[in-house]
Amino acid sequence: MQTRREMLAKMGGAAGVAGMIGAGFFSPLLNGEAMASAKPNLKAGFPYEYAKLDLDEVAERAYWATYEGHCMYGVIAPIAEMLAEKVGGPWKSFPVDMFRYGAAGVMHWGTLCGAVNGAAATMYLVSKDPVPLIDEVYNWYSQSSLPVYQPVKPKNPNFKIISTVSGSPLCHVSTTKWCNESGHKFFTPERGDRCCRLVADTARKTAELLNAQLAGSFKPQYAIPAAVQECRSCHGKGGMLENTNTKMDCTQCHDVEPDHGK
Amino acid sequence: MQTRREMLAKMGGAAGVAGMIGAGFFSPLLNGEAMASAKPNLKAGFPYEYAKLDLDEVAERAYWATYEGHCMYGVIAPIAEMLAEKVGGPWKSFPVDMFRYGAAGVMHWGTLCGAVNGAAATMYLVSKDPVPLIDEVYNWYSQSSLPVYQPVKPKNPNFKIISTVSGSPLCHVSTTKWCNESGHKFFTPERGDRCCRLVADTARKTAELLNAQLAGSFKPQYAIPAAVQECRSCHGKGGMLENTNTKMDCTQCHDVEPDHGK
Repeated sequence: MQTRREMLAKMGGAAGVAGMIGAGFFSPLLNGEAMASAKPNLKAGFPYEYAKLDLDEVAERAYWATYEGHCMYGVIAPIAEMLAEKVGGPWKSFPVDMFRYGAAGVMHWGTLCGAVNGAAATMYLVSKDPVPLIDEVYNWYSQSSLPVYQPVKPKNPNFKIISTVSGSPLCHVSTTKWCNESGHKFFTPERGDRCCRLVADTARKTAELLNAQLAGSFKPQYAIPAAVQECRSCHGKGGMLENTNTKMDCTQCHDVEPDHGK
Repeated sequence: MQTRREMLAKMGGAAGVAGMIGAGFFSPLLNGEAMASAKPNLKAGFPYEYAKLDLDEVAERAYWATYEGHCMYGVIAPIAEMLAEKVGGPWKSFPVDMFRYGAAGVMHWGTLCGAVNGAAATMYLVSKDPVPLIDEVYNWYSQSSLPVYQPVKPKNPNFKIISTVSGSPLCHVSTTKWCNESGHKFFTPERGDRCCRLVADTARKTAELLNAQLAGSFKPQYAIPAAVQECRSCHGKGGMLENTNTKMDCTQCHDVEPDHGK
């Protein structure tokens, strides 16, 4: 697997990037991908009411909710429970237990990390404009060194949990990187605690972004990396090939030969 | 990217496989991965009541629901609506609109296909033993040539929609394969109709499996491919490395060198 840096070098450095810009790279078309139906359909009672949440409380509850019901549940359950306490209504009968299905990339399939599966579900449930928030949390998750959360009451105070950058919202990518760098196997209490902390970070970020949107102060801090935009300029919307639709880092899985695209 | 056949040849053919069996391959540990919490927590009202559904009706409703709210919604909405009609209760206030978030692997991130994200969510919501059903629908989706559904009232009767094998539950893998083999770009009405039919197939399979489990006649027809079990024997639970937890096809994204594992 080559790095993005290696791929960019192979693609011709600054001259190549200049050519890409001329050929339509970084087009606004590639950034937003607005869909007519990307915004929620405002049926009666939808989206659910949201109220500003205390971020420290969200994070600690999420840490322990993950021990109870795994990663996707760990993001959704504390937010739903706190909103049931604060605003009541449909939150009181919201079936949080169904979201246990997202555990380990959906019942050990290693696909989408349950933390960000849950973050997107939560944002879509409560926001009238969820897509910028979803993009933000997916880019943040992929590009940040996580976990950083230090539990108020850790399950095991002796655990030293390192942080790693997943580069991806996929479960098996995120966990394998952490296992390889930490030296802990997947089915260990340390890896489990790492994921509980990662969920705490993600639930906190989810509530932080929702709080900001509610207050009218949300501003995106993360963007799709330039190298991914370059891939999308040919393979994505409006591109010559337009055969792929993703915002994930392509070269993390796909080798790119030196003459690729020539 | 090399094929599994090539990888197996490189790994030493029959003699290599025999060695793997001796080394703990195909261990029962690797097949089920039972978790204490994999079964639903039976809180009051959970799981939701399920009743036998008409598969033809599920499929046609799913086809059109996908035009309305995309792939994840397309699986969940028709099943929830039909159960609201048949059994009522909590189904009448179930917030199906939230599942629009799963569109195109979660709002164009190309991660988990919304059809199977929705299938797993639905199964977990209504079944007391959802994990075998989830494994079945994920293996079926990955290994089958899809879509096969012929809409009763197609959006455009002139569309000729070919079938392809994704090899993966990931959105961008499934759609890119179809785009490359069909010659249609991603943002075309044909690709959209292909996904609506694929959702119809997946919703039908979801209801078919739930109907079978309800009747006590469910028997799994699909298994994790042997080549993936081989990868899991070192990288998965109980393996020497135990650094990865997935049931997806590893070699679809990861090159395996001839001396891998030696």
